[in-house]
Amino acid sequence: MLTDHISIILNGLLLQGLKNAVIAPGSRSTPLALGLAQLADEQKINLFVDVDERSAAFFALGIAKKTNIPVLLVCTSGTAAANFYPAICEAKISHIPLIVLTTDRPPELTNIAAPQAIDQNRFFGNQVKDFIELPLPETNQDSKDYTNYIIQQSFQAAMTNPAGPIHLNQPFRKPLMPDLPLVFDLNQRKYNFLPFISSFNDKLSEKLHNSFENKRGIILAGPQQTPLGNLKMLEWAKKSGWPILADPLSELRGMNSTNLITCYDSLLKIGLKNLDILKPDIVIRTGQTFVAASLVNFLKNSHAQIYFLDENNNHSDYTKTSDFSLNLSSEDFFEKLRPVATSNTWLKKWIDVERIFTSINKNSSVNLLNELDVVRAIAQTCNSNSNLFVSNSMPIRDVDSVLQPTSPLNIFCNRGANGIDGIISTALGISINSTNTLLLTGDLAFFHDMNGLMMAKKYHLKIKIIVINNNGGGIFSFLPQAGSDNFETVFGTPLDIDIAQIATLYNAKYSLATTDKKLKSLLKSPTLGLEIIEVPTNRNENVALRQSLIENFKQQITKEL
Amino acid sequence: MLTDHISIILNGLLLQGLKNAVIAPGSRSTPLALGLAQLADEQKINLFVDVDERSAAFFALGIAKKTNIPVLLVCTSGTAAANFYPAICEAKISHIPLIVLTTDRPPELTNIAAPQAIDQNRFFGNQVKDFIELPLPETNQDSKDYTNYIIQQSFQAAMTNPAGPIHLNQPFRKPLMPDLPLVFDLNQRKYNFLPFISSFNDKLSEKLHNSFENKRGIILAGPQQTPLGNLKMLEWAKKSGWPILADPLSELRGMNSTNLITCYDSLLKIGLKNLDILKPDIVIRTGQTFVAASLVNFLKNSHAQIYFLDENNNHSDYTKTSDFSLNLSSEDFFEKLRPVATSNTWLKKWIDVERIFTSINKNSSVNLLNELDVVRAIAQTCNSNSNLFVSNSMPIRDVDSVLQPTSPLNIFCNRGANGIDGIISTALGISINSTNTLLLTGDLAFFHDMNGLMMAKKYHLKIKIIVINNNGGGIFSFLPQAGSDNFETVFGTPLDIDIAQIATLYNAKYSLATTDKKLKSLLKSPTLGLEIIEVPTNRNENVALRQSLIENFKQQITKEL
Repeated sequence: MLTDHISIILNGLLLQGLKNAVIAPGSRSTPLALGLAQLADEQKINLFVDVDERSAAFFALGIAKKTNIPVLLVCTSGTAAANFYPAICEAKISHIPLIVLTTDRPPELTNIAAPQAIDQNRFFGNQVKDFIELPLPETNQDSKDYTNYIIQQSFQAAMTNPAGPIHLNQPFRKPLMPDLPLVFDLNQRKYNFLPFISSFNDKLSEKLHNSFENKRGIILAGPQQTPLGNLKMLEWAKKSGWPILADPLSELRGMNSTNLITCYDSLLKIGLKNLDILKPDIVIRTGQTFVAASLVNFLKNSHAQIYFLDENNNHSDYTKTSDFSLNLSSEDFFEKLRPVATSNTWLKKWIDVERIFTSINKNSSVNLLNELDVVRAIAQTCNSNSNLFVSNSMPIRDVDSVLQPTSPLNIFCNRGANGIDGIISTALGISINSTNTLLLTGDLAFFHDMNGLMMAKKYHLKIKIIVINNNGGGIFSFLPQAGSDNFETVFGTPLDIDIAQIATLYNAKYSLATTDKKLKSLLKSPTLGLEIIEVPTNRNENVALRQSLIENFKQQITKEL
Repeated sequence: MLTDHISIILNGLLLQGLKNAVIAPGSRSTPLALGLAQLADEQKINLFVDVDERSAAFFALGIAKKTNIPVLLVCTSGTAAANFYPAICEAKISHIPLIVLTTDRPPELTNIAAPQAIDQNRFFGNQVKDFIELPLPETNQDSKDYTNYIIQQSFQAAMTNPAGPIHLNQPFRKPLMPDLPLVFDLNQRKYNFLPFISSFNDKLSEKLHNSFENKRGIILAGPQQTPLGNLKMLEWAKKSGWPILADPLSELRGMNSTNLITCYDSLLKIGLKNLDILKPDIVIRTGQTFVAASLVNFLKNSHAQIYFLDENNNHSDYTKTSDFSLNLSSEDFFEKLRPVATSNTWLKKWIDVERIFTSINKNSSVNLLNELDVVRAIAQTCNSNSNLFVSNSMPIRDVDSVLQPTSPLNIFCNRGANGIDGIISTALGISINSTNTLLLTGDLAFFHDMNGLMMAKKYHLKIKIIVINNNGGGIFSFLPQAGSDNFETVFGTPLDIDIAQIATLYNAKYSLATTDKKLKSLLKSPTLGLEIIEVPTNRNENVALRQSLIENFKQQITKEL
């Protein structure tokens, strides 16, 4: 476990180009020291040992100043790290890349006055570019993958403009002796980061063009794209015959293009096992983390080469699958990249699948509206002047699954921290200076920010709020705890709130919608002020509803494809 | 004082494009609330007031999400700010620009359990892009200028990719009532930040070309340039007839170009009053903060338009004078910008001044080496294979003043935090894999990192260390405390260290150099290991030496120009 962990760390650093390490001796850093000594013996790195940590850190600073490649700086736990501080301050202001790896006692020895255990968390404050608490050595694969990714991305982050020191704190438990010699896994995934926008020169763009030529490629368009980036992407995809899997927050859905695919979540949920023809060789990811969790597993299990347009250059790859991260916007990337040739059948298959999904993605025949029907009604009544703010938890998932608008909407959602707090207030903020804003929320999120309605009353803001009232937290019915004892008490949490009374309290127009016809008529009417539309639904039926959609899709695909 | 301060803050925000503010009411924020209300009355901004801080912050988030322009979010002191936290977390991860302005009690009310006084310093931890403690309202101009600059740059920093929240904490003393209505100073300096590299398009580069055409321009090349950036800059300056004032750490000095000017520090010290012909209309600054303090005053008093190539996009303008900050490297900027036409006499005058300085920048005739002579000897013996590491305090200033090498050297110095700690270790780090590294240091910095010499002995590193031994801190002789009681005890701090004995301790070759001839012969010989060259000098004579250089320069200029 320890041996594996050290190998992953050191191999990750080597893969990224580590050349020099400086170590100040000590006990807790033993496994790293021995590993580094082995690498030095094998002439893979230069290793310097300095007993004075203050000098050691400045020595590492000097090497990095000359080479502009991050130098690894290692020390034991306790005040040793504090001696690094002067050189770290210098490195931060001077933009010199360093990987400062302090070793630490494990959690159980902290906060109880164990010897040489100081609080090393965020020890260097704002004087480092970033701080990361590395995990203890673990056997589970996810933890190993994380260590590998975080080590490689830290090395890159240290070099990324503005360059600077990164602090990694590594707790170790005794015994501290790894099995030597370390054996490196040559298949350990290497992450390629291309951090500078100016590196996307003609040579690189031609190289990528050649890598993509005659391959089966898809584009995954995540949230928060720019309109111009979207246009360039669509243009490139059209010329190249690549499908674009469009997250609802990409603002692509509803644009006039046959390349756009919206059925991916349902498609992945039926399983791609028998759909080899839809498996890509190349994936280009743009935007922030997509709504669909199914896409994460898809990427993890895919053998495709994955390119991530990491516009914000923060290496936030939740999937840890990107073979290449490029610090480029969609706009810059697709503008420069020459379109590629692709087999005609590739896009056609995707269009077929999308067509099949569209044919079954219809309102249910029963009169009582369900949660998916509400999204369909929105798709059919909103237009490009509409702002649609979607609450987290179930509503954004429903939108992801079935929203197929006829024209592009302005869709927003708080997908950074994915909270259900502040939903009403955020939507009201979006509504100012607009006449057509719609909020889709569940009853729980609606209640949580009920105070926020005050602003609508006070500033005469115009908004329609659809409250899907399934009396509690609907998402839990999809999780393993569904059906457990005390489910309603601790998960379902029915509030029994009276939406109509809340409407009265805030001078809102209140409507109840139980049929598709009624809901659409309410959505089509002009928004004159604060309007609350309550749609009562049933949490348990909702689970069955989604299962039947996927089952239906599976049958049609088997029949038609 | 308070009224002025509020005006500066609000006007700075308006100048940068503030459109919307959200305030959660309270007492400590009174002056800002009244100022914002006035702006709303005058229809300069939209103001929203929300009693629930949590909702208020999400409401601001919503506005910013829609507009992509920072929204000002204000609250009173105490836990009010904590209610902002959920929306701030969301803004940080989602890259939404916010200016979170928390008001605070003044320092004298903190840490003594005064009511509603919590520690608001770095209150939001890593969940904000940056934290800045704003100064209390002050009468002195430097403080006002700082507030103006920091407010404007915070607004830009919030928008800069990756966008996010900036936390400003503003302490106020009672009374909290400003004089209303606020009067805005229309001459308040506006700082223009052009944050995106992609904004340097053809249109902008042509606009700049036209602004520079037929103007008297200079380039200030600061530390840490890239070789390619330097080449592009030289090429552009040559075609345009602009002088380049080359900081010693720009690595430009010694390159073959008549555009390079090294005498600026001495020139500025004699005063530019009678040298109107050398006053520029345009200044382009590149690189990090320059060594010469005289350049800061020059920029502050100049009427030139100042352009700052802020490659690291951290708006670190110590001079607070840049009218335009461009997030571009020298390489990108000078590659794209078309050369301009400039009057022939402009560059010629600068070349004349440089020629005059060169003619007087000679070794003193006396046999005893002085501190400036050491730098001259280095200039005459080192070449482009040499690494020259220069200690902070006097040595880098001496190098700035008189270093005129015949070929470019690789010059390094720890100019981020400007410490005299770790000098030997940093230089040794630079020396690995090199055969020709020279360290120029005073005796105090040499002593401070004496432990660092261990590494040279242990790893058989090759370095020559020139120790200018004036037995103490030479720089203090130039400061106001020179000649005060107890000067030697608390400032001069003579150490009486025996350099030869230290050399013995570390197996170093020791030489004493008191003449130019001896020093040059030592510098020219191959570096075989650790070599220490001691040059004894006198702190008091050094002051006179520099005064006479400047006096001499002044006389020659008056005579010849």
